[in-house]
Amino acid sequence: MSKKELIVREEILGSNKKVAAEIREKLEAAGVLVVNLLSSPGSGKTTLLERIVETLHPTHPLAVIEGDIETERDADRIRRKGVPAWQITTGGACHLEAKMVGKLLPEIPAETKFLFIENVGNLVCPASYDLGENIRCVLLSAPEGDDKPKKYPKAFASADCLIFTKSDLIPYLPFDLEKAGNEALDLNPRLRIFVTSALKGRGIAELARYFIESRVNMIQHQRHA
Amino acid sequence: MSKKELIVREEILGSNKKVAAEIREKLEAAGVLVVNLLSSPGSGKTTLLERIVETLHPTHPLAVIEGDIETERDADRIRRKGVPAWQITTGGACHLEAKMVGKLLPEIPAETKFLFIENVGNLVCPASYDLGENIRCVLLSAPEGDDKPKKYPKAFASADCLIFTKSDLIPYLPFDLEKAGNEALDLNPRLRIFVTSALKGRGIAELARYFIESRVNMIQHQRHA
Repeated sequence: MSKKELIVREEILGSNKKVAAEIREKLEAAGVLVVNLLSSPGSGKTTLLERIVETLHPTHPLAVIEGDIETERDADRIRRKGVPAWQITTGGACHLEAKMVGKLLPEIPAETKFLFIENVGNLVCPASYDLGENIRCVLLSAPEGDDKPKKYPKAFASADCLIFTKSDLIPYLPFDLEKAGNEALDLNPRLRIFVTSALKGRGIAELARYFIESRVNMIQHQRHA
Repeated sequence: MSKKELIVREEILGSNKKVAAEIREKLEAAGVLVVNLLSSPGSGKTTLLERIVETLHPTHPLAVIEGDIETERDADRIRRKGVPAWQITTGGACHLEAKMVGKLLPEIPAETKFLFIENVGNLVCPASYDLGENIRCVLLSAPEGDDKPKKYPKAFASADCLIFTKSDLIPYLPFDLEKAGNEALDLNPRLRIFVTSALKGRGIAELARYFIESRVNMIQHQRHA
C-alpha cells in the first residue's frame, strides 16, 4: 500500500471508529443490543437470521439492517417475517461503514431490543469496520473448508462469537469441525463457538439464548457503570 | 466514498491497469495463457486447480501464483503436485494487484504454457483489478446459493467464464443451477459456463480443453495481428 493510500485509510478508519462509538453509546442507552454478522458470500447469514427472527421475535422485538452490494433480496426475506428491515446497497463497496448504520437509527422502533446487522458478504474488508456492535459474529459454513480461520485471521481474531453454519452438510464434506474450531481459538481464545444448521434448526435456540444473555449483561453492566 | 478516497482509488486502478497490460503483452509474446481465478473464500479454487494440474501438467506445463491474506498453505498444495508455485501473502489486503504478479515474472520457467493465478478469496474487491490475465474465471460453489450473481454483479459481469463448483452437493441443497446460470448470463451474455465437481472429477476435462483452446486462439490471434 502506498503512503497516500495508508493516510487516507487511517483517516477513514479513525472517523468510522468515532461514529461507531456514538452508535454503540446511543443504542446501549436505549437497551438495544447490536450484533454484526460477518462472513463470506453464501455462508448462510440471511437464512440464520430468519431462524433467529422466528425464535426471538416478537417476544424480543428485533430489527435488521441488511448490507449488500446490490439487490433488496435479503431485506425482503426478513420483512416477510414481520420484522422491520432496511437494505443498504453499497453499490460496489465491499463493506458497511458506521455512518451508513447511523443514518438508519431514527427509523428503529422504540420497542426494539436487538438490532442485527448483516454485513456485505466478504470475509476480509468488513473486519476492519466497527459498526457500533456489541457482539461481532463470524460465520463459517462447513462447505467453505476447515482451513479458513488462519487464512482470514482478522475476521476470526476480531469476533466475539464463531457460528459454524450448514453443519447438516458435514457428512458429505471433508470438513473437520474440531480442527476449524481449534484454529479459530488459537487466533482468539475468548471466542464463543456455536454449531448450527438453519435447515435442520440445530443450535439456533442456544444462539438465541446467547444473544438474550448478552443483552442482560449489557444492561447490568450499564447499571454498575 | 469521499472525494479524496475516489481520487486515490482512480490513481491506483489507473496504474494497475498499465502494469496489467504490460504483463499481458509480455506473457502473450512468450506463449503463456494467464487465467485469473476469482471467488468467495472456500468456493474450491485450490481444489479445482489441483484437478486442472493433474489434467494438464506436465504435457502442458503450467505455473501457479497463489494469493492469500496469510499462510503458504495453497502454494504448498500445488507444489506437492510437482508444479512451480509462488505464494503471495497480502498481509491483510483484500485482493491481488498486477504489480505483485509482475515481480514474479522472472521466475516463471521458459517452458510454461499456462499461468494460473488464484486470487484472494473475495467475491468483491478482486473484480476491480486486472492482473494481466487473458481469461478471468469466477467460481460459484453450489452451497453459496443460486442468488449470488446479481448480489455480486461485478465479478460475474467482468468474467469470461463461470465455473460452478461442488456440484456433487446439489442433491443436498436448495440450489437451482439453471436460475444461477441465467442470472449470470443476464449480467454477461458472453459467459462460458462449466459445471464441475473436483471431488467427483466432473467437468474438469471440458474445462481443461477450454483453456487449451483459448491458448491456441491467443497464439493464432497474435500471428494475424
